[in-house]
Amino acid sequence: MRDLLRAGSDGDRVDLGAIDPRSMPGLPAAAGAGGGRKAWARRQVEVIGAELGRQQEMLFAAAKAAQPGAATSAPTTGGPELGGDRPGRVLLVLQAMDCGGKDGTIKRVAGAMNPLGLHIRSFGPPTAEELRHDFLWRIRRALPPPGYVGIFNRSHYEDVLVARVDGLVPEATWRARYDEINEFERELTAGGVTVVKVMLHISRAEQGERLLDRLTEPRKYWKYNPGDIDARSRWDDYQAAYAEALARCGPAGAPWFVVPADRKWYRDWAVAHLLRETFDTLDLGYPPADFDVAAERARLRGLRTGQGERRVNEA
Amino acid sequence: MRDLLRAGSDGDRVDLGAIDPRSMPGLPAAAGAGGGRKAWARRQVEVIGAELGRQQEMLFAAAKAAQPGAATSAPTTGGPELGGDRPGRVLLVLQAMDCGGKDGTIKRVAGAMNPLGLHIRSFGPPTAEELRHDFLWRIRRALPPPGYVGIFNRSHYEDVLVARVDGLVPEATWRARYDEINEFERELTAGGVTVVKVMLHISRAEQGERLLDRLTEPRKYWKYNPGDIDARSRWDDYQAAYAEALARCGPAGAPWFVVPADRKWYRDWAVAHLLRETFDTLDLGYPPADFDVAAERARLRGLRTGQGERRVNEA
Repeated sequence: MRDLLRAGSDGDRVDLGAIDPRSMPGLPAAAGAGGGRKAWARRQVEVIGAELGRQQEMLFAAAKAAQPGAATSAPTTGGPELGGDRPGRVLLVLQAMDCGGKDGTIKRVAGAMNPLGLHIRSFGPPTAEELRHDFLWRIRRALPPPGYVGIFNRSHYEDVLVARVDGLVPEATWRARYDEINEFERELTAGGVTVVKVMLHISRAEQGERLLDRLTEPRKYWKYNPGDIDARSRWDDYQAAYAEALARCGPAGAPWFVVPADRKWYRDWAVAHLLRETFDTLDLGYPPADFDVAAERARLRGLRTGQGERRVNEA
Repeated sequence: MRDLLRAGSDGDRVDLGAIDPRSMPGLPAAAGAGGGRKAWARRQVEVIGAELGRQQEMLFAAAKAAQPGAATSAPTTGGPELGGDRPGRVLLVLQAMDCGGKDGTIKRVAGAMNPLGLHIRSFGPPTAEELRHDFLWRIRRALPPPGYVGIFNRSHYEDVLVARVDGLVPEATWRARYDEINEFERELTAGGVTVVKVMLHISRAEQGERLLDRLTEPRKYWKYNPGDIDARSRWDDYQAAYAEALARCGPAGAPWFVVPADRKWYRDWAVAHLLRETFDTLDLGYPPADFDVAAERARLRGLRTGQGERRVNEA
């Protein structure tokens, strides 16, 4: 799946127009035989999510073993400093046009994982405080702590997307950011962060349908923003900005993947699949005991007074 | 359920010894008829979780409508200031003896909700920086932003539990904290935070079984801490500390609930049920459009060039 969906590495040109947003790379031919592909894919996301849950646990356990106490501390101030000796973390970066399905992907894919090991951060327009700093300042503060799976709902890429299309900064500024992003992501990779960047690729037609849906269903009004139409009117500019970001920002270890996303069920399945393949490369396992198991069992027995101690049936 | 499990309000004595950790208050007599209560309860948690997901969305939508832009900003530095004019947030505080099932409850109950609207924070032993501040400092920083459901995995109650039993601070210090906590929680409630505090109540025998399991299954070694045995040897002191905290810290609007937790499936079902009842008291709904719906539809139509615009089938 990683090979099928990989896009843009070190200067390769990326032609988004050549990728059909309704295509389904990697979907097994037998998927949903006798049932329907959508239902099959939804079930698969649950199955993969359970596997990802086990991988999350090993990632978390390794972090706890490496730094006793740290893994259970509150990650309230963003991720700790990076360091080559630090244990692993995984970071999924999600980008998409409006209505591209970032929220839905998180709901379905992260929803099938263990919420205790997730570190989800959404990035909106920068606040006044954030604007006083470098564009990567708020990103660094939002990194997952060791042992966690981070998910970025939008990211530093907005600073070469909306910042470029809307001319929020001079061209020289956003042009310089490609190198700054590559440098930053190399730093992440060297610091033990496994980065997976996903662009959810929808068609302009599908965006139109989804916007119309938000303007038709009162329960979805809150998701609509009149600015979405302004962005839609600059569709081609955004696609060009995406294509350049994907082509220029793919340092080794922090690749971009383009997931066709007009079909929500394929999108979720593909992202879950990409995450599982990413975890498989980490070759995780459970850490050995850092205490004397026999001695601890003896201590526990010593405390078992016989009073009220018994095997307990679950059901 | 709230009535059945409620414990300790404004000085009522709480007798934990009178609550059977294997009891199942509120479980329908017909639960799992023909199938097994455990399987029934597991399914119910999924069903309730989906309902909670809808409630979460309304909570989030209300926050977004009240503060455009804020709801999508990264909550990387803890919750914003409290204020009576702020929209709602929900905070579930989980406390338990070691092996009491806090992690498992979060995995199952929060795992059935939408991860995008969750703000989960775990509290371990205070860091050097945290110790330089008042005990509530790190708690305030970890509050969920408006629109989010916060979950505290341990909390400020550790400062009247382990701090008391292990004598980490003088008695006068921890005794004063009951009032400080009540004041703090009154402030939360007044500031639009709906607080639900849950003690997962396990028996000493069940804790013994679970500790033994962690010392038997190599995949669980990482969860074991020799300090757990020390705490176990002070079981009665901890139970007394819990009983006093539950009795003394139940300001109106921030009640304690005691959930019998020897049976994991009952525990998860009961916590999910408590959350649903809590949401029901909020009387949530979707906010009206803050834009001209007809005008926006016209703008969208104006951009639909006919080229590539069509109804898209999902499957």
